[in-house]
Amino acid sequence: MKEFELIKRYFAEQSITRKDVVLGIGDDCALIQPTERQHIAITTDTLVAGVHFPLNTSARSIGHKAVAVSLSDLAAMGAEPAWLSLAITLPEINEHWAADFSAGVFELCEFYNVQLIGGDTTQGPLSVTVTAQGYTPYDKYLTRAGAKAGDWLFVTDDIGDAALALLYIQGSVDIEEVHQANIQTKLDFPKPRVLVGQVLREYASAAIDISDGLAADLGHICSASNVGANLILDNLPLSLAMQESLPLMDAYKLALTGGDDYELLFTVAADNKVAMETALATTGVKITCIGQLDSSHKIKTLLNGESVFIDMQGFEHFTDK
Amino acid sequence: MKEFELIKRYFAEQSITRKDVVLGIGDDCALIQPTERQHIAITTDTLVAGVHFPLNTSARSIGHKAVAVSLSDLAAMGAEPAWLSLAITLPEINEHWAADFSAGVFELCEFYNVQLIGGDTTQGPLSVTVTAQGYTPYDKYLTRAGAKAGDWLFVTDDIGDAALALLYIQGSVDIEEVHQANIQTKLDFPKPRVLVGQVLREYASAAIDISDGLAADLGHICSASNVGANLILDNLPLSLAMQESLPLMDAYKLALTGGDDYELLFTVAADNKVAMETALATTGVKITCIGQLDSSHKIKTLLNGESVFIDMQGFEHFTDK
Repeated sequence: MKEFELIKRYFAEQSITRKDVVLGIGDDCALIQPTERQHIAITTDTLVAGVHFPLNTSARSIGHKAVAVSLSDLAAMGAEPAWLSLAITLPEINEHWAADFSAGVFELCEFYNVQLIGGDTTQGPLSVTVTAQGYTPYDKYLTRAGAKAGDWLFVTDDIGDAALALLYIQGSVDIEEVHQANIQTKLDFPKPRVLVGQVLREYASAAIDISDGLAADLGHICSASNVGANLILDNLPLSLAMQESLPLMDAYKLALTGGDDYELLFTVAADNKVAMETALATTGVKITCIGQLDSSHKIKTLLNGESVFIDMQGFEHFTDK
Repeated sequence: MKEFELIKRYFAEQSITRKDVVLGIGDDCALIQPTERQHIAITTDTLVAGVHFPLNTSARSIGHKAVAVSLSDLAAMGAEPAWLSLAITLPEINEHWAADFSAGVFELCEFYNVQLIGGDTTQGPLSVTVTAQGYTPYDKYLTRAGAKAGDWLFVTDDIGDAALALLYIQGSVDIEEVHQANIQTKLDFPKPRVLVGQVLREYASAAIDISDGLAADLGHICSASNVGANLILDNLPLSLAMQESLPLMDAYKLALTGGDDYELLFTVAADNKVAMETALATTGVKITCIGQLDSSHKIKTLLNGESVFIDMQGFEHFTDK
C-alpha cells in the first residue's frame, strides 16, 4: 500500500504543535503529558460514506465533518479539545482527495489548537473514525444527567437545516436558490459549539449535542436526569430556509427528528438563567429557550399553549436508512 | 438503527471498572482522571474485512484481534494498557455475532484490566477501529529511535506463522493437519506482548511490534535510529509448522515479509543483554537474538556467516492486495 504514504505526507504537514504532546505521529503510539488536575474527555465517532454523508460529498467536507462531529461531543461535556486520532478507510488514493480531506481536517484543528497525534490509513469502503480528546477541570464538566424539574431548556442557533439539506439532495423537497448554499453549508460544515460548551460548564445543569435529532437527544437528557420536558414548538429556532421550504408543522417535525445539527441542547436552573445568557453573549452564538423541564418523565410538545401530538416517524433520518 | 442497541447491550456488560475512569460508556464523552506523573500512550488501528482478516473469520477472532493489534502497539512503547474505544461498522446485526465479538474483546480487556470507555456502532461494510490508551512512566518508554550500532537485535516467540496460515487459507501452501490449529490460532488470536514490553522499558534501546513484517519493521527501527543491521537468518525462530511446510529459503522469506505476527522486535545494548534476558525469563515468553546493529544504514541478511540476498517481493502481504 505504498500509495497510502501519500496521505501520510499530507498529515505530516500540520501546523499545530502542542506542548503536552511528547511524541506525535510516527511511532507505535503517540505520547501525551497531560496537564495535571484535569479530566480527559474522550469520544469516538465513525462516518460511513452513503450512511452519514451522501456519496458525492466533497473530501474537504468529509474531513471537516469527521472532526466537527467529535469536537461537538467534547463541546457537550464542556471540554477543551486537545488531540485527535484519525482512522481513514479509502477505496483508493487520489492526490486531490488527500489534499482536500486534510485541509478540511486541519481547518478545525488549527482553529481549536488540536494536534493530530496518530491514526491509521487502510484500504476498503470509505469511512472515517475520529477519536478526539480534551480537558475538563476536575468536577466542572457537563453531562446528560444533571437536569432538574424546573430547569429551562435551551438550544444553540437554528435547528433542522442539515436535515433539510439532505431532503433537498434526495429530491424530497424544493428549496429556493437563495437558501441552497446556506443549508448545504450547515450540512457539510457543521460548527462544533466548543466555546459555548466551555462557558456552559459554569452555568448549565445538563447538555448534549444534537446528532440524533432534538427530540431523541432531549429524550437522552430526560432519561439520564430522570425528568420530563415541555417543549414549546412556537419557540423552535427555524431558519428562513426551513420556514419558506416546508409547511410549519412539517418544519417542526423535521427540526425535532432531523439530526446532524450538532447544535448544543442544554438545561439551566432558573437561578443561573440570566448569568448564563450574559456569559454566552460574548460567544456570538444565538441561543433560544425552547421549553422547561418537569418531573413527568415524558416529553410534551406545546403549540399556542396547547398540547399537540407530533408524529416523530414523519421523516426518516438519513442514517436510519 | 434500533437493532444496534443490541450490540450496545453486550458492551454494557463488561466486568472491568477502573478507578481512573470517572465516566464510562453512555454520555457524549468518557471522562478519565489519569494517574499523575505518567505519560499517556495512544494508538489507533483499523481492521477491514477482506483486507486485514479473511471474510470468514469468526466474530470472536475479529474482536480479539482488533484489541490485540492495539495492545501490541502499546506493548511496543512499554505502556500499561488502560482504556479502549471501539468503533464498529457492521452490515447488519446478528445476536450471535454480537455475543461472540464482545467475548473476543472482553477476554483481552479482562486479562489486562482494560476498560471499554466508549465508541460508535454504525451501519456499513464490516470494519473495526480501536483506539487504545495506556500509561508509561515519565521518561521511561520505548520508541523506534533509541537503537545504536552494536546493540543486539531480539524478537519474541516465532515469526511467520500468521502469514503461513493466510497462505494456507488462500490455498497457496499445504500444511500437515497436526499444525493447522496452531497456526490458525497464531493468525486469529495474536498475543500482544504487553508484559514483555513493560519489562523491556528498563533494558531495551528501541522496540516495535511486527505488523508489517520483520524486515519492514526492522527498517522502521533502522531508519528512526539512523543505524543498519546484520540479520542472521539461521537464528530466525521458525515454528515446526513453518519448517515442515516450506522450503527453508521460502520460510525465511515469509518470516521476513509476512507481517501480522504482533511479536516484539527490540534492540538491547551489550551491557544490558544479560540483565534483560534474566528479567524477561519471568514472563515465560521465548526471545531469540537474530542479529546486531551496525552503522551501515543498510539491512544485510546473513546465512551460514555469509551475506545472502533475499527477494522481499517473494510473498505479498495479505494487506497489500
